[in-house]
Amino acid sequence: MKSETGVSAPPRAVVSLSGGMDSSVCLALAARVYDVYALHFSYGQRTEQRELASARAIAEVVGVRQFLPLKIDLFRQIGGSALTDVNIAVPDAPTTTKIGEEIPVTYVPFRNAHFLSAAVSWAEVLGAQAIFIGAVEQDSSGYPDCRPAYYSAFQRVIETGTKEGNIQIHTPLIHMKKSEIVRLGVELKAPFHLTWSCYSGEDRACGVCDSCVLRLRAFAEAQVLDPISYVGS
Amino acid sequence: MKSETGVSAPPRAVVSLSGGMDSSVCLALAARVYDVYALHFSYGQRTEQRELASARAIAEVVGVRQFLPLKIDLFRQIGGSALTDVNIAVPDAPTTTKIGEEIPVTYVPFRNAHFLSAAVSWAEVLGAQAIFIGAVEQDSSGYPDCRPAYYSAFQRVIETGTKEGNIQIHTPLIHMKKSEIVRLGVELKAPFHLTWSCYSGEDRACGVCDSCVLRLRAFAEAQVLDPISYVGS
Repeated sequence: MKSETGVSAPPRAVVSLSGGMDSSVCLALAARVYDVYALHFSYGQRTEQRELASARAIAEVVGVRQFLPLKIDLFRQIGGSALTDVNIAVPDAPTTTKIGEEIPVTYVPFRNAHFLSAAVSWAEVLGAQAIFIGAVEQDSSGYPDCRPAYYSAFQRVIETGTKEGNIQIHTPLIHMKKSEIVRLGVELKAPFHLTWSCYSGEDRACGVCDSCVLRLRAFAEAQVLDPISYVGS
Repeated sequence: MKSETGVSAPPRAVVSLSGGMDSSVCLALAARVYDVYALHFSYGQRTEQRELASARAIAEVVGVRQFLPLKIDLFRQIGGSALTDVNIAVPDAPTTTKIGEEIPVTYVPFRNAHFLSAAVSWAEVLGAQAIFIGAVEQDSSGYPDCRPAYYSAFQRVIETGTKEGNIQIHTPLIHMKKSEIVRLGVELKAPFHLTWSCYSGEDRACGVCDSCVLRLRAFAEAQVLDPISYVGS
């Protein structure tokens, strides 16, 4: 892309930024090559305020061209997930089964399709040909919309349902272990101190939900100190 | 599906209801077989208020189980379409080219993916295995997200990205001519008098935008009187 001064500007990419560790590393990675535009979603999740604050701060530190916070009112209205429905409790990570073996109650029905759709819409308007999402298959909570087959299928929707059909989904972390993502984040100087992963607390992370347990395990395996504070630590 | 009294209840379907003629006929059709749950979207389109009022009234007349109006704030923020961006005028229907030959400025980037995503999310919570959308390929404005290949691709996203993978997209009107849809609507007693199709007016339909022109032509070809009123008529 040539600017008015004749100097080539980097290509543009839209990045879905939750404010968690994976999406923050994904943003830092995309920012190495692209002019990045970060999208964040408030969808009625318990830790909505904290996630928004984290995402905004991370976007600023990494240096995005634009940070676009969006609201989705659907999930609060339809319920069906422990993350968005106050009548369903966020459980502690399971002790008898492995995390990811079953689809947990924290699954938000078809959530990532909403994120991808918004990213594609914005990419069409910006003329961006890349969208990034920090989905992780292994070491994840077992959500169906974090698997490679899902993203291949969505890629086909983009090819058939957009003006130019030339926007590519990038999921650079999808085959990585969480501990490898921590190491990559250290290398890229991702601002882990600003990230938020906990499903239930907004002040200090609970340390016992699936998301906290997966994060703590990842930092421990990577032999990196997790810079955020946890209840009781 | 068995209710507590042991009587089989009809299966459930989620229907995307804009309030236009196509989605209203689609709703009336689905209601013949299913318990219908109607979704409506306010996404910053010029005729937002009128469309919502129409959809609500149609849902009531057809007899839905629930009417869920949703807001999408994305499109107003990113612009890029004459329907949602006040800086882009809604053109009159073309006189030198055929409607549908080019993607027009009224294309809302990747809009239907947002509608489908919401329908799938709600269907997962309701345990519905059917979603209906009144997309029409022929006789349409040429939007890429109204083509059969697009819905086949989205079907694969549902199969890979939901808990059960068993929700089916139905597009019963996709291969029909608009005049055939009018005739079907008459047969099903779809409340055409409550529908709204115009892209620019909320009080009386303009009669000259793509959507009005396609609608007027469809009623004329079907030899049915369009019961709504138009500017100058």
